[in-house]
Amino acid sequence: MNTYSVKAYGTESKDADLQELNIERREPTSKDVEIEILYCGVCHSDLHTARNDWGGTMYPSVPGHEIVGKITRVGSDVTKFKVGDLAGVGCIVDSCGTCESCKQDLEQYCQTGFVGTYNGKDKHLGGHTFGGYSQKVVVDADHVLKVPENLDLAAVAPLLCAGITTWSPLKHWNVGSDSKVAVVGLGGLGHMAIKLAKGLGAEVTLFSRTPEKSDDAKKLGADHVVISTDEEQMKSVAGKFDLIIDTVPYDHDVNPYISTLNINGTLVLVGFIGKMDEALFTPPMILGRRSVAGSVIGGIAETQEMLDFCGENNIVSEIEMINMQDINEAYERMLKSDVRYRFVIDMKSLS
Amino acid sequence: MNTYSVKAYGTESKDADLQELNIERREPTSKDVEIEILYCGVCHSDLHTARNDWGGTMYPSVPGHEIVGKITRVGSDVTKFKVGDLAGVGCIVDSCGTCESCKQDLEQYCQTGFVGTYNGKDKHLGGHTFGGYSQKVVVDADHVLKVPENLDLAAVAPLLCAGITTWSPLKHWNVGSDSKVAVVGLGGLGHMAIKLAKGLGAEVTLFSRTPEKSDDAKKLGADHVVISTDEEQMKSVAGKFDLIIDTVPYDHDVNPYISTLNINGTLVLVGFIGKMDEALFTPPMILGRRSVAGSVIGGIAETQEMLDFCGENNIVSEIEMINMQDINEAYERMLKSDVRYRFVIDMKSLS
Ligand SMILES: [Zn+2]
Ligand SMILES: [Zn+2]
Ligand SMILES: [Zn+2]
Ligand SMILES: [Zn+2]
Repeated sequence: MNTYSVKAYGTESKDADLQELNIERREPTSKDVEIEILYCGVCHSDLHTARNDWGGTMYPSVPGHEIVGKITRVGSDVTKFKVGDLAGVGCIVDSCGTCESCKQDLEQYCQTGFVGTYNGKDKHLGGHTFGGYSQKVVVDADHVLKVPENLDLAAVAPLLCAGITTWSPLKHWNVGSDSKVAVVGLGGLGHMAIKLAKGLGAEVTLFSRTPEKSDDAKKLGADHVVISTDEEQMKSVAGKFDLIIDTVPYDHDVNPYISTLNINGTLVLVGFIGKMDEALFTPPMILGRRSVAGSVIGGIAETQEMLDFCGENNIVSEIEMINMQDINEAYERMLKSDVRYRFVIDMKSLS
Repeated sequence: MNTYSVKAYGTESKDADLQELNIERREPTSKDVEIEILYCGVCHSDLHTARNDWGGTMYPSVPGHEIVGKITRVGSDVTKFKVGDLAGVGCIVDSCGTCESCKQDLEQYCQTGFVGTYNGKDKHLGGHTFGGYSQKVVVDADHVLKVPENLDLAAVAPLLCAGITTWSPLKHWNVGSDSKVAVVGLGGLGHMAIKLAKGLGAEVTLFSRTPEKSDDAKKLGADHVVISTDEEQMKSVAGKFDLIIDTVPYDHDVNPYISTLNINGTLVLVGFIGKMDEALFTPPMILGRRSVAGSVIGGIAETQEMLDFCGENNIVSEIEMINMQDINEAYERMLKSDVRYRFVIDMKSLS
């Protein structure tokens, strides 16, 4: 298969800083599109993968799965895009298309495993896939999203991972204008959960450990802020929420939140991969048919639905733009939650 | 309010054996029926309440919430029953009728708390309610069930708690002929879960720690038995089940079962009130949108639906009949799981 070389930013080992390197992209097949990447969001998964925090990282590792850009080439079978169109790529660049999950547009749960935008098995070239910290990417057109023209393009990038990760549970658990939704944690995921839940018409509460985030949360659309370390405030929301989106990225105890769920309510974990801090205390679950669930990103059709919704409702991420060369410093700041609320790389800086 | 005295069996303190005593029943109001109790099943909650294992037991305590018998008196406003009809009473003898849960026929989740058949607040006489270990009971007719005439009446009694406790999650999570259901634990609840899931047409698997229960499980209707301590067997059912009904009555680790759930599958806890043994490991939950939930008994309408279903499908509990005077020994045997699968008291023995 013919390939060509593009500039990218990545790392050769878990301990090395990210730096400029060259990677090979395939020449587009008849089903592919080529995208000139204009902006790429910076997700916690990027950092965890670069540093092999979850194991299984293949090097060189080029992260990035919040990609927006312009279509520059179109395969002969592709009717969905033309050269010059805006386009987005999220976490999924391929899936089997035939399993029970894929048949239901749940590619994120593809039973043979979806192909990740980075660190996935590259079916075309062998080896592994390289992400969006690069000048161009070539992707199967069925896994590429259309991007509304009316939004700030750089601020759309984080919708491709942080947005869909919170949108999918909101939709799966039927959030609408009658719903009371709470969000735990105010970072990249949490701030999108607030905006999207509010966009769907829900009454939205942020759980926070400190009062300092109250003003920000309210500016983002939260109706209420509950300080989770304040027992009185926690009691005042007992039995209230239909859905809690828990975006906390480290191990923690979910038991205090479960009692704030309404009958039939669900707390859905979207941020932490690992073992929780405390075992479940069953009475509030049993006596109120309450659930604890998990959810990962979303399917392609659902991601398109979310982007269209954001276009109609003028919803984008809050971002801080950086140059590609600032990525190592950005990772350090991300670890300290020192970002409101998502870094986005201006890919011009790589040229 | 006028009352009359009936013989019962109960205990004056957490350390005392159960013995014969007299309790007062109210004269039926216009909305009540009086039931001559013929059989009463013996539930683990009876023992836990008698011994104050969960705290909050009011003495004298008269347990029993798997009650079947014959209507002996009917209040003037009651049209649902006539004298001589078979009748059943489960765990709920009253509820507010006006909260969001009650309006949805979810009296088990009544937001002001349903009135338990025993150890509940008696709205009529003050004090607390007395259960089915007695000759007669007087209950609001709306909380009394019709009992199919074609079934072995003594073996119907356990349906009123063990039956509905497993039926409600089967129905809530939409189990039908396409479903794959697993049951953890083969006791009073577990054996009903197998029979009812099989009755609904599901493919049913029992998880057991020991192979000895295999023959019994298959006689009860299980299609498969998986030994949960055998890693190979556990791997062979990875991703298989739509619903797991976990009836284990002591703290345990649910993590090994979660991986056996299909995408969107739910493990529902119905047997253990307390803190689980191990914290949740989130990856199988997040990467498969799997849930852990709880569920308690069922509403009145749902209990009637279950009894009618059992009548149509000839489903009853497997029971061992005892006399009222054998109850203390029965409790000891229950603690050793030495019963296949439910003790039922022949209330004639109390007269
Ligand atoms: Zn991400
Ligand atoms: Zn698939
Ligand atoms: Zn019971
Ligand atoms: Zn109620």
